[in-house]
Amino acid sequence: MSSFAKMHQSNLNTSLFGLSLDRRSGLPLHTQLTQALREMLRADPAAAGERLPPSRALAEELSVSRMTVTTAYDQLIAEGYLSTRPGGGTYVAEDLPHLAPPAPRDATSKASEARQDTPATAWLPFQPGLPDQALFPHRLWARHLERAWRNPDPALLDRPDPFGWTPLRQAIRDHLAAWRGLDCATEQVVITGGAWDGFDLIARAALPPGALMATEDPGWATMGQVLAASGITDRPVRIDAEGLDPADLPPETRAVTITPSRHFPTGIAMPLTRRLALLDWARERDALIVEDDYDSEFRYRGQPLPALAGLDGLQRVIYMGSFSKLFSPALRIGYLVLPERLVTPMRDAIATTGSRVSMVPQPALASFMASGEFATHLRRMRRHYAKRQRHLLSELAGLEHFLQLQPDPSGMHLCAGLGPALAPLGDRAISERAKAAGLTLRALSSHARLPDPPQGLLMGYAAFDERALSGAANTLRALLRAL
Amino acid sequence: MSSFAKMHQSNLNTSLFGLSLDRRSGLPLHTQLTQALREMLRADPAAAGERLPPSRALAEELSVSRMTVTTAYDQLIAEGYLSTRPGGGTYVAEDLPHLAPPAPRDATSKASEARQDTPATAWLPFQPGLPDQALFPHRLWARHLERAWRNPDPALLDRPDPFGWTPLRQAIRDHLAAWRGLDCATEQVVITGGAWDGFDLIARAALPPGALMATEDPGWATMGQVLAASGITDRPVRIDAEGLDPADLPPETRAVTITPSRHFPTGIAMPLTRRLALLDWARERDALIVEDDYDSEFRYRGQPLPALAGLDGLQRVIYMGSFSKLFSPALRIGYLVLPERLVTPMRDAIATTGSRVSMVPQPALASFMASGEFATHLRRMRRHYAKRQRHLLSELAGLEHFLQLQPDPSGMHLCAGLGPALAPLGDRAISERAKAAGLTLRALSSHARLPDPPQGLLMGYAAFDERALSGAANTLRALLRAL
Repeated sequence: MSSFAKMHQSNLNTSLFGLSLDRRSGLPLHTQLTQALREMLRADPAAAGERLPPSRALAEELSVSRMTVTTAYDQLIAEGYLSTRPGGGTYVAEDLPHLAPPAPRDATSKASEARQDTPATAWLPFQPGLPDQALFPHRLWARHLERAWRNPDPALLDRPDPFGWTPLRQAIRDHLAAWRGLDCATEQVVITGGAWDGFDLIARAALPPGALMATEDPGWATMGQVLAASGITDRPVRIDAEGLDPADLPPETRAVTITPSRHFPTGIAMPLTRRLALLDWARERDALIVEDDYDSEFRYRGQPLPALAGLDGLQRVIYMGSFSKLFSPALRIGYLVLPERLVTPMRDAIATTGSRVSMVPQPALASFMASGEFATHLRRMRRHYAKRQRHLLSELAGLEHFLQLQPDPSGMHLCAGLGPALAPLGDRAISERAKAAGLTLRALSSHARLPDPPQGLLMGYAAFDERALSGAANTLRALLRAL
Repeated sequence: MSSFAKMHQSNLNTSLFGLSLDRRSGLPLHTQLTQALREMLRADPAAAGERLPPSRALAEELSVSRMTVTTAYDQLIAEGYLSTRPGGGTYVAEDLPHLAPPAPRDATSKASEARQDTPATAWLPFQPGLPDQALFPHRLWARHLERAWRNPDPALLDRPDPFGWTPLRQAIRDHLAAWRGLDCATEQVVITGGAWDGFDLIARAALPPGALMATEDPGWATMGQVLAASGITDRPVRIDAEGLDPADLPPETRAVTITPSRHFPTGIAMPLTRRLALLDWARERDALIVEDDYDSEFRYRGQPLPALAGLDGLQRVIYMGSFSKLFSPALRIGYLVLPERLVTPMRDAIATTGSRVSMVPQPALASFMASGEFATHLRRMRRHYAKRQRHLLSELAGLEHFLQLQPDPSGMHLCAGLGPALAPLGDRAISERAKAAGLTLRALSSHARLPDPPQGLLMGYAAFDERALSGAANTLRALLRAL
């Protein structure tokens, strides 16, 4: 990969050493350094793959503590801007994560607003984790919204329940019983503003301040940020072929977050033995397990694996669900299913500050689910996604030398291993070339924060129809042969 | 007031001393004690006004550190369950704050779900801070929702801007220019999930961890909880006749939150001299001012006072607005207007975790505002509220001996001083009697956390029509004469 980096010119070190931090500003020095460095990396794509100055050297140059520099480096490693390499040293990632466009410089020009108004670049194949909005029943959904608010149930305008709209919580309970083999009471269901809001509430109601939470590595790329924002100390733990192993957990671990039904992003399903081992661990340590169950409804062969929370009888496991992948990211609605003993602490935690979740989508989603139209939609999407996965696999047949692909019984993306022809290049370099060719081929290693991450490529197929997948497959074939 | 308490029997101390805390639980001891004590107070209304055991005595009984007890007491004082008295000692409040109903004990019975399904007790006069939902244009609003999502703008389904839906941010900018004399750029407007979300974002993007923020006392009752949940150290500061005085701010103060246009809950408008003094203070200390401007659009005489943020040219002031009082609490949408220099740090802070705000209401609110229907609605509500205030004042004329009332040029509630006939009783005792008579007459002192708070009674009129106000006024007259 570094040979690839050598091809470029970059003035990163010069600008880094020239950096001046403002001690009178309201922002801590490490925050200022993080922001400045992040800006530089955004502004200077040529820096990809470049090695950063050792923390001690930079600390001396800026006359700040070395801790300030390492804190900033660690933060940007967590965000995926920087990476460490086996040999040691900190490098600029070749595969920078998507971030929102920075605010236009000229804060008053109508022009810049017009720019903001135009939709951001559309998603490219093989962007993972997206439902196909073209197949979304927009008119039906709009009708549910209109009906819910035209002549609203008085309870919608009264004191809101801190846990959200009760009929929606009942619909979620019924959905979980039918689709996830999870039996719970409406009272245990909390509507949230998505995963971030969910972890924030868990931190406030169920964990001591700064508690250590183990997370899967590789895993969700921004997990570290989300937990940090909620005051949780995040500890990535490398998974094995069966997922996260309780034997690898540091003794001070108070909680783990896992994706047992379908590990993100590798797709590994955690076997029962490992599930039971994790539940034993949680019982012995009186620890908490957060089960992040993000897309298990999309199961193409056999039954979905029942949720871990069901196996546990909701004693030590908090079940975390979301509608972003199942339905629409625009909803920004998720939910938690709590163990009995956490219901009252959580009610108190939310009652003191009030819920952050808008009431507007809740009654519409409730009636959409209660009417059975939601289940119909899921089954329809599942048929489409299954066809798309088969189509993609057939399009890419015969490339075993490059990509090690196999049918996945569930999910919305495939995780391809690197064949002998690609392994020497490394997944980030390939991802970088693919980007240049107009393909989003996310590197598995960009989802890891520990050194020597597994190599692979994520291929989302759910959001793209057969034509788009065929076109992208052609581009990919050409690209691979060129390597 | 204590005489009032003496009338009751309570076993609070017995149950407190019998309390057992679980050292193996995930929850810190002070959290467990806070929750247990809160539960007792909920379960035991007879405890109102009772004196709690001294922290040292309780600490010995429970064999925990005294700090554990004082932390729990302070928390419940902040929440309004407990209060301190000039003479010293901690007492159960006579005027417990509204909290959501606790979770039903039987977590599986359909019956308990049915209970949850029935709307909570309707709001009683003179509940403050509520818009009149009966005057809300529900059909019109539902149509905007339906139109926005029937055939949605592709940008609504694409990468969301971390600051929210741009057309809504533009509509807010135009609204602020027209109604609040505040000139800003769309880029400076951030859509939030309400005040709590707003403070949380400010803490992450603009303040060092645990920064000290001064807040008005009396003020917003749950302010302490909201700031604590966002990792901000809250310091209530007693206001004078002109509002918060910068001379009273501790030197380590990094930020203040104020309601300069109309102090909540007293209604004081901060004079220009004091506004300028605060801006000078912020410039000298490089500190931040959060201007909480919650209902200034409802101005019945003269022009609304221009926002402090305008006077400052958005250098040191973050403007915080909300649609809860203007439009509907069900929206759960607020916004921040940021100084230029905070735009990029805030974008980075939100981009790392993603926004918590649902997209669903945003395009509907944007078109509702852009169409001019929002301004029409505000003007209509303003006429109604002005009439209702006049009506309430005329209904209560001749009670000067009890209530010191005067016309308020703005807002949604009146803050009545206690006349010679009521002063000896104290506002909490009166509030307690009113509750028994079916009136919500919130005690001004229940909005204070510092000792010797000012006494008064809050009378919300906005959400109640003339008939309801006349009826409530009759009840109140009878009650006052009986005292």
